[in-house]
Amino acid sequence: MSDKNTLVEPRTLKGFQDLLPEDVIARKTAVAGIEAVFAKYGFVPLETPALEHLDVLLGAGGEETNKELFRLETPEEEPIALRFDHTVPFARLLAQYPDRLKVPVRRWAVGPVWRADKPDPGRFREFTQLDVDVAGAQTVAVDAELVALMCEAMTAVGAPRFAVLINNRRLIDALLEGCGIDDAPRQKHVLRVIDKLAKVGVDAIRLELGEGRVDASGDLIPGVHLDAGTIERILGFIAVNGATRAAVVDAVEQALPESATATEALAEMRELDACLTALGIGQEQALFQPSLARGLDYYTGPVFEITLPDAPEFGSVGGGGRYNQLVERFLDRPIPCTGFSIGLDRLMAALKHLGAVDEAKSTTQA
Amino acid sequence: MSDKNTLVEPRTLKGFQDLLPEDVIARKTAVAGIEAVFAKYGFVPLETPALEHLDVLLGAGGEETNKELFRLETPEEEPIALRFDHTVPFARLLAQYPDRLKVPVRRWAVGPVWRADKPDPGRFREFTQLDVDVAGAQTVAVDAELVALMCEAMTAVGAPRFAVLINNRRLIDALLEGCGIDDAPRQKHVLRVIDKLAKVGVDAIRLELGEGRVDASGDLIPGVHLDAGTIERILGFIAVNGATRAAVVDAVEQALPESATATEALAEMRELDACLTALGIGQEQALFQPSLARGLDYYTGPVFEITLPDAPEFGSVGGGGRYNQLVERFLDRPIPCTGFSIGLDRLMAALKHLGAVDEAKSTTQA
Repeated sequence: MSDKNTLVEPRTLKGFQDLLPEDVIARKTAVAGIEAVFAKYGFVPLETPALEHLDVLLGAGGEETNKELFRLETPEEEPIALRFDHTVPFARLLAQYPDRLKVPVRRWAVGPVWRADKPDPGRFREFTQLDVDVAGAQTVAVDAELVALMCEAMTAVGAPRFAVLINNRRLIDALLEGCGIDDAPRQKHVLRVIDKLAKVGVDAIRLELGEGRVDASGDLIPGVHLDAGTIERILGFIAVNGATRAAVVDAVEQALPESATATEALAEMRELDACLTALGIGQEQALFQPSLARGLDYYTGPVFEITLPDAPEFGSVGGGGRYNQLVERFLDRPIPCTGFSIGLDRLMAALKHLGAVDEAKSTTQA
Repeated sequence: MSDKNTLVEPRTLKGFQDLLPEDVIARKTAVAGIEAVFAKYGFVPLETPALEHLDVLLGAGGEETNKELFRLETPEEEPIALRFDHTVPFARLLAQYPDRLKVPVRRWAVGPVWRADKPDPGRFREFTQLDVDVAGAQTVAVDAELVALMCEAMTAVGAPRFAVLINNRRLIDALLEGCGIDDAPRQKHVLRVIDKLAKVGVDAIRLELGEGRVDASGDLIPGVHLDAGTIERILGFIAVNGATRAAVVDAVEQALPESATATEALAEMRELDACLTALGIGQEQALFQPSLARGLDYYTGPVFEITLPDAPEFGSVGGGGRYNQLVERFLDRPIPCTGFSIGLDRLMAALKHLGAVDEAKSTTQA
């Protein structure tokens, strides 16, 4: 066995990481703190397998996740794939066990998910998510509660400062409607562009909504080819700012063309603001940010993202939103749902960077 | 989305299970109890990815595990597979990070592993293992310590009665050597047959060592085609019994032809018995059982299995052994290792059956 010619090279897959004891211990401490918050808010743990039938996953998160699936086959040659999140399997569960998972259900899940996308430093192909979801509740009071829970979870892991950014997919719907952008691929393209505002800045967004641009690496980023008036209307919407959540809603109202969708979405945001205030969530902890869109296709109402303002280079360490139509892929009746997910790997990297956990001595990644 | 014609059927993969809250809570309690024992004995947690390069896994557990791998590809079209145990990835780590994982290393790992074999009730294609391993120690005192640790872990999860069965691969080597069975495929075949003694009984073993037999389902089980004298010699060895571990070693000595291998293996078993006695492990908790062989190819010394005598139908709920040559697949020098693994799914099923955890209200499996 020790013949040099036959040695297998010991190596980790690209985009995957080995966790040596210091990492695992720091992660276990963080997970235990977060789970205690989940339990305090009355959530119970549910676990689903790593692998799902391909049709359960396919299309559920939109094209982005379809391309990123790790696909394989069962011994019976059925097409299957590794889960890309905990949300779609939860929607499957709700449809599969209606008698044993009677809504409302509040569950949490912790475990790895897999995406076959381009790995970067801090962006892994296998990463751990901690999810909370509420099924069977339609009210924005539940969305507000999830934001409050996330604030407590961030405090539990010792994040020095954090902010939950909030927007509403229906506000964006109202904007697109008002701009006459009504075909789905074009809508998705606009969503993807405006979601990048914080990362690339307003000038790059203007180019991407128009003719496209060449990025720093020389790659051509194709544009949406909107006319100048529409572009400025969209930029006016996503650049909205204000000292308070209420002020942002007022300013968004000015930036949006009047419509039934706009009226409903604005009312929902005002109610969400009132609930957050009632729960004691300060203006710095939960901000309304109109450019926030989130990548996944299944969101239908409020969307969230957690950032650590002192470690902006780590991007969002969590996110979520309301997904009222996902269960309908499996069941012939709607079950309104909302959820929030923490990305443990990115959170730990950011906390280490901020000195909020012991210095990384051992994370080994490829 | 709610069009009946396009509904995706919500279903779990064959051999996989969803865990509803009662199950997850019972499992979390058991895992926490076992991890506390691991920590008490000075083990630290280490985690490796679910996926490995195919050549890292291939051949490491022998043909049995090769056939059972869930294989797929990276986006770069490299062949990869889901891990089938935690032991082979640990061997990879030892070779990959010699400067940061300086032996001796005592680690534990908890997580799912995957095998694409035939699922049965209680036999899943995705199952959770809790592993402890010691790398860099050659002495049987360490094997004895692992047995003591496992006894404490079984007590921690509330197992009413348990027994750690122990044998030594080198005793079996001495037997095969004495019988002149020296080609590897034939040796493996004999190992596989004698390992089934507890399950199928001595008459079936006699037939399988000879011409083969037809099992209850009508399937032909091919035989090893040994001569009658050799068969009786092997049966004499595996049927050895005794009131104490020492008595079993004495009886094995009578049943084995004299050889250097036999002398060394018998001395090792006597030393192991002395260590177990010194650690306060009673004759009922740790038994020597010459028929125990274990399926995996990589064992080189003592092998172990945990059974719950009041729930024999659940088979072994844990097992392990010494594997001194596995790291040599990756590294041009030997690192002696020994380890023990608990099968959480089978353990929980057996404990539920014994009333040692709350009645199963919700495990849902396909």
